[in-house]
Amino acid sequence: MTTTQPTPPAPFTTEDYSARMRRVVGDAERAGLDGLLITPGPDLVWLTGYQPTAITERLTMLILAPGKDPTLLVPTLERPDAEAAVGAPSLTIVDWADGDDPFAKAGSYLRATATMGIADSAWAMHLLGLQETLPGSSYRSLTQSLPMLRAVKDADELARLDAAGAAADATYEQIVGVRFAGRKETDVAADLARLLREFGHEQVDFTVVGSGPNGANPHHEAGDRTIEVGDVVVLDFGGLMYGYGSDTSRTVCVGEPSAVVREVHEIVRLAQQAGVKAVRPGVACQEIDRAARKVITDAGYGERFIHRTGHGIGTTTHEPPYMIEGEEQQLVPGMCFSVEPGIYLAGDFGVRIEDIVTVTGDGGRRLNNTERDLRIVE
Amino acid sequence: MTTTQPTPPAPFTTEDYSARMRRVVGDAERAGLDGLLITPGPDLVWLTGYQPTAITERLTMLILAPGKDPTLLVPTLERPDAEAAVGAPSLTIVDWADGDDPFAKAGSYLRATATMGIADSAWAMHLLGLQETLPGSSYRSLTQSLPMLRAVKDADELARLDAAGAAADATYEQIVGVRFAGRKETDVAADLARLLREFGHEQVDFTVVGSGPNGANPHHEAGDRTIEVGDVVVLDFGGLMYGYGSDTSRTVCVGEPSAVVREVHEIVRLAQQAGVKAVRPGVACQEIDRAARKVITDAGYGERFIHRTGHGIGTTTHEPPYMIEGEEQQLVPGMCFSVEPGIYLAGDFGVRIEDIVTVTGDGGRRLNNTERDLRIVE
Repeated sequence: MTTTQPTPPAPFTTEDYSARMRRVVGDAERAGLDGLLITPGPDLVWLTGYQPTAITERLTMLILAPGKDPTLLVPTLERPDAEAAVGAPSLTIVDWADGDDPFAKAGSYLRATATMGIADSAWAMHLLGLQETLPGSSYRSLTQSLPMLRAVKDADELARLDAAGAAADATYEQIVGVRFAGRKETDVAADLARLLREFGHEQVDFTVVGSGPNGANPHHEAGDRTIEVGDVVVLDFGGLMYGYGSDTSRTVCVGEPSAVVREVHEIVRLAQQAGVKAVRPGVACQEIDRAARKVITDAGYGERFIHRTGHGIGTTTHEPPYMIEGEEQQLVPGMCFSVEPGIYLAGDFGVRIEDIVTVTGDGGRRLNNTERDLRIVE
Repeated sequence: MTTTQPTPPAPFTTEDYSARMRRVVGDAERAGLDGLLITPGPDLVWLTGYQPTAITERLTMLILAPGKDPTLLVPTLERPDAEAAVGAPSLTIVDWADGDDPFAKAGSYLRATATMGIADSAWAMHLLGLQETLPGSSYRSLTQSLPMLRAVKDADELARLDAAGAAADATYEQIVGVRFAGRKETDVAADLARLLREFGHEQVDFTVVGSGPNGANPHHEAGDRTIEVGDVVVLDFGGLMYGYGSDTSRTVCVGEPSAVVREVHEIVRLAQQAGVKAVRPGVACQEIDRAARKVITDAGYGERFIHRTGHGIGTTTHEPPYMIEGEEQQLVPGMCFSVEPGIYLAGDFGVRIEDIVTVTGDGGRRLNNTERDLRIVE
């Protein structure tokens, strides 16, 4: 096996982060917001390069507002870490010490009647603190108010997603060569994690190995079940490489598949293909879901496809836009998301096929390119 | 080195979780709350044994209210995982599918004018969804409204914290025997993580190795700096064992310490001792902070002790009660928290000494018992 790593992309610069913050302030203004409040997590990493050691009860918050310098409020004892972030030279860093009221300090940077977008995963405790300090202020989650914040990737981001996708593909090419029969799901999951790291991932987020009936539970991770000859096995794995996500699924069969397995797998393969083929600029997200779902529904398995067709991917492995009925957001070149229909036969087996797809000037391009036919493993 | 594991404690039972939920509903009522909303995280694990594979944008929420059955709202595709939780037989599990409005579903279990306690780390997006669905409802964070929710540990919990503390102590006894000089901080941090696992931790949360000037940044984790002879090195490490936390700090010196280092270390040692000695039932948390801080302030280093003296520990390594000026909560037998004063000389070095302490019937008992004198390493 070759584990030659691709050349790492040049790191993002202070100017890259600064440009993102400027762009986002404009986006917020156009969305009717007076600014944005960004707590630790993928949005903060994307905007500043700063990721605290841990996300804790101590408030860390980036405040972005038109005409104001970006301000990062941090606990005093985390100030040195914040100052070391690549984006820090573009920020005014303000600290608060244990015993201070961080909400009063944050509030001094906000208008009393401001309408602010706030990071989805900001702590409820912190939002309640702000609401209490500024009773006239109001808040909207970023998924609700600015869902496309990070959705359109530029060339430097796409290069990272491409690298992550290629590493996930290399992982799949190796995993189909390992022994499945007689080993536990967790053993195969450990192989997946090791391979993702060998092919360059700095973080492994999930390694689903759903064998037999476990494959019919889409969120089953990997358990003690020993894989048997005849099992259908859903593999769904990914993580971060150069800070950007991978996420791909294939379903394999240990030994010869039954006619039903072949039939169900082929329906999912065609559904996935239909979803990918529907991708082009200007199409609404829900059309991707409809295209994939129609194939499964027409084949009589509509009730067994129990989740949306896909989700965005970037500095996280789950983010807007979502490929789901009711999502009218139009696709824009540079968006990246999963197309991952599945059929789940409770108590029996499941099938899911997933690629990350990016929207191009006139269609879609898959970032995962391994074989999608039913693969037989040992 | 012996890595013999202690006998694992008996797992918590469905009845254990059920008893906790009953107790907590009573606590909530006495605190003037109409109920509690618990999203994934340490509170949910403690109340039900349920920990979803990942904490995501899809709402999972336990609803506890007087006179009602505990109800767990989960995404449809995570239902099988939730049903497998040990506490599940005590719960009514209700699911919502992609495309449904989870807030409408949650709202149907709440009074329109309810005042609910909500988990500190619930997502802002979810709180905003509830506020929008039930405009007459109000919310208070658990740290604000029910801070002592998990603070008093019973004997089964204390046994786990004791085991975690003993494993952290065994780790320290080994780490002082490894080579420091000429190795990177990250190398020593990797040793710490390996040792914590060898001694029984299932999760490593932090492995701080702050050498020389890095030790003066209390939240420095571990970096590329090569440790040199003469360096003072802050070690602060912990994680989870049997689901409960460890957290201990010692400061070592690579070779002979200077007179200043000896002096500063001795002040911190005496401050930590004073903090621990102040522990007994009925004393306010802030008195622990005052007792430790007085020693450092009297020695002229008050400005260099830039954080609170301690934090609670249990199913997380940071939780109420906090040992901080202004915290008037009285200590109760069974509470467990850190006592960890420090002195930080920017650009030069830092010293911190930390033990977990539990409140007994008439005083305090340390769960960490390694030597607290300045240890010289190679």
